[in-house]
Amino acid sequence: MQTELSRRLGIEHAVFGFTPFPAVAAAISRAGGLGVLGAVRYTAPGDLARDLDWIQDHADGRPYGLDVVMPAKKVEGVGEADVEALIPEGHRQFVEDTLARHGVPELAEGETAGWRITGWMEQVARGQLDVALDYPLALLANALGSPPADVIARAHERDVLVAALAGSARHARKHADAGIDIVVAQGYEAGGHTGEIATMVLTPEVTEAVAPLPVLAAGGIGSGEQAAAALALGAQGVWLGSVWLTTAEADLHSPALTRKLLAAGSGDTVRSRALTGKPARQLRTAWTDAWDDPAGPGPLPMPLQGLLVADAVSRIQRYEVEPLLGTPVGQIVGRMTSERGVQEVFDDLTRGFERAVARLDRIAGRP
Amino acid sequence: MQTELSRRLGIEHAVFGFTPFPAVAAAISRAGGLGVLGAVRYTAPGDLARDLDWIQDHADGRPYGLDVVMPAKKVEGVGEADVEALIPEGHRQFVEDTLARHGVPELAEGETAGWRITGWMEQVARGQLDVALDYPLALLANALGSPPADVIARAHERDVLVAALAGSARHARKHADAGIDIVVAQGYEAGGHTGEIATMVLTPEVTEAVAPLPVLAAGGIGSGEQAAAALALGAQGVWLGSVWLTTAEADLHSPALTRKLLAAGSGDTVRSRALTGKPARQLRTAWTDAWDDPAGPGPLPMPLQGLLVADAVSRIQRYEVEPLLGTPVGQIVGRMTSERGVQEVFDDLTRGFERAVARLDRIAGRP
Repeated sequence: MQTELSRRLGIEHAVFGFTPFPAVAAAISRAGGLGVLGAVRYTAPGDLARDLDWIQDHADGRPYGLDVVMPAKKVEGVGEADVEALIPEGHRQFVEDTLARHGVPELAEGETAGWRITGWMEQVARGQLDVALDYPLALLANALGSPPADVIARAHERDVLVAALAGSARHARKHADAGIDIVVAQGYEAGGHTGEIATMVLTPEVTEAVAPLPVLAAGGIGSGEQAAAALALGAQGVWLGSVWLTTAEADLHSPALTRKLLAAGSGDTVRSRALTGKPARQLRTAWTDAWDDPAGPGPLPMPLQGLLVADAVSRIQRYEVEPLLGTPVGQIVGRMTSERGVQEVFDDLTRGFERAVARLDRIAGRP
Repeated sequence: MQTELSRRLGIEHAVFGFTPFPAVAAAISRAGGLGVLGAVRYTAPGDLARDLDWIQDHADGRPYGLDVVMPAKKVEGVGEADVEALIPEGHRQFVEDTLARHGVPELAEGETAGWRITGWMEQVARGQLDVALDYPLALLANALGSPPADVIARAHERDVLVAALAGSARHARKHADAGIDIVVAQGYEAGGHTGEIATMVLTPEVTEAVAPLPVLAAGGIGSGEQAAAALALGAQGVWLGSVWLTTAEADLHSPALTRKLLAAGSGDTVRSRALTGKPARQLRTAWTDAWDDPAGPGPLPMPLQGLLVADAVSRIQRYEVEPLLGTPVGQIVGRMTSERGVQEVFDDLTRGFERAVARLDRIAGRP
């Protein structure tokens, strides 16, 4: 699975694997893809440095990348406390009522919330970058619009390619104008923040809109047949996130959540604002139902919702309260039915890709 | 573009074209695909016979098919008037208020509503079948679940293959159990009634669920690259509907609607219950906005909504009231940017398919 872009990056397969787990990222790179570590959960720069050291030591010299969540627009002098103050009391009460209804215990004294999306705050993301750009990254991706111009310049000085996620051709064109190198076209069926346009329609639109920039297709891709489909649509590679969540190398810290992922069908996700305030695809749970219920107060805009629910999500995860327990994941969750190692996922991907190409050759009447 | 199914049907390309226009259906069959006439708008059996005669005379002896909307469950002794009586007065008033706000004129005296979805009523669909099964149909498709067992048997007696649309693997399995021959897997991005699962995820799920029955992929397919993607996912053919709406052979009776379709982007559709009471993808208009507005009464369930809005939609179309003017269409509308003849669409499809296969061969390192 070799494209112009995979050759440029020196990887064997044009498969880009996004994951919050260093062990998965390193395994993806070892298997011949490009492991991309999600940075959003790292609030302490030291933690990120520790995990990048680990990847560096375990990637067998193969390239890897980092994914940050950095807003292009800077909001001067606004800290977490200022934002917290904007959260209405009724919403806080709704969180407590929902947790109480499901008997979710408080965190023990001294136990801190593990789940905290503060990486979207520019000062946090910049701290991550200061750490990360000391490592030999092959790719820096931004999940929230184009990165600021100075960040793109710093990456380019170090020969780091810059990618940005887009859910429409218009967004993709803005990224291209900002000077990025790769667009990740994120379809409706993808896990996490998504737009309304499905991968089948979005990929060729974005490819045409930003040509000759390379495009990675994201959303609905978990098999080699799906990778072949995405490459047929003009992508120069595929961007997979969900499929790694149930690999042996992943560490969800929750057997109950792993069980839910393995049992879920493709219809068991929902695009909801319950987690961050922006529409993000995730497992449908009693938690997303509560926020999507017209009788409730409804989610706050980003970034308020993420701050509002951070402690609650930590408590739900810590105590594995099954009806509320969820995670961002794409519709491909329906095909994640058994735990595999990362290398096994790659073997399945390449075999499925070969099968699909041979099938198309037959349909086209090629020898 | 030859699959086992296309060979069985004796067509040159595994392209199935759904259209309400006899001239488009015949042109699709002449171009080497299978033209499938949508029957839902025919209330008088004589009109359907006239148009099937026309197709028979203009298809150059190539095979063609018919698409009906027939409920599997029979509701005994319920006529249109009984159903009309269930519509609340407040909803009728909302229709009139919405039309008045946009200055939509009444139909002239003696002018009858042209738009009327009554084909979903079993007695109407059975009348269509009595007419249609006298013609040498190659395919009978049902857009609303599995057809009743006796209809499948009548079709099979005449060597007519029976297809049914499905938006999930579960629905597809029910169709297979009912004895149909082909499943049309209709993805989220498709025009008309759709589920939530995107084509990229749905196609392989349905293919695996009903194997060895052949599957046609529908939703998001308008180019040869998209056809190649769908076939890579395991489909034995592609089912296209939206793309024909702006062909030279189509007759929308509304230059304004054609202009709207040619101008619309992939983000300009919405999955709304405004037209039939079931979620159907269509152009987003002031009409869909009014029904999707939480402040309004909201759509009634099928079949009430279709009856409620029939006259209103006819008036909107008759007078081309642009803000309200819409039609079912998929996200692929963003790529329908110029009028082409049906043969030209086929030429583009086959060229794009060849390009995509050659591209995948290169990526796979094949000679």
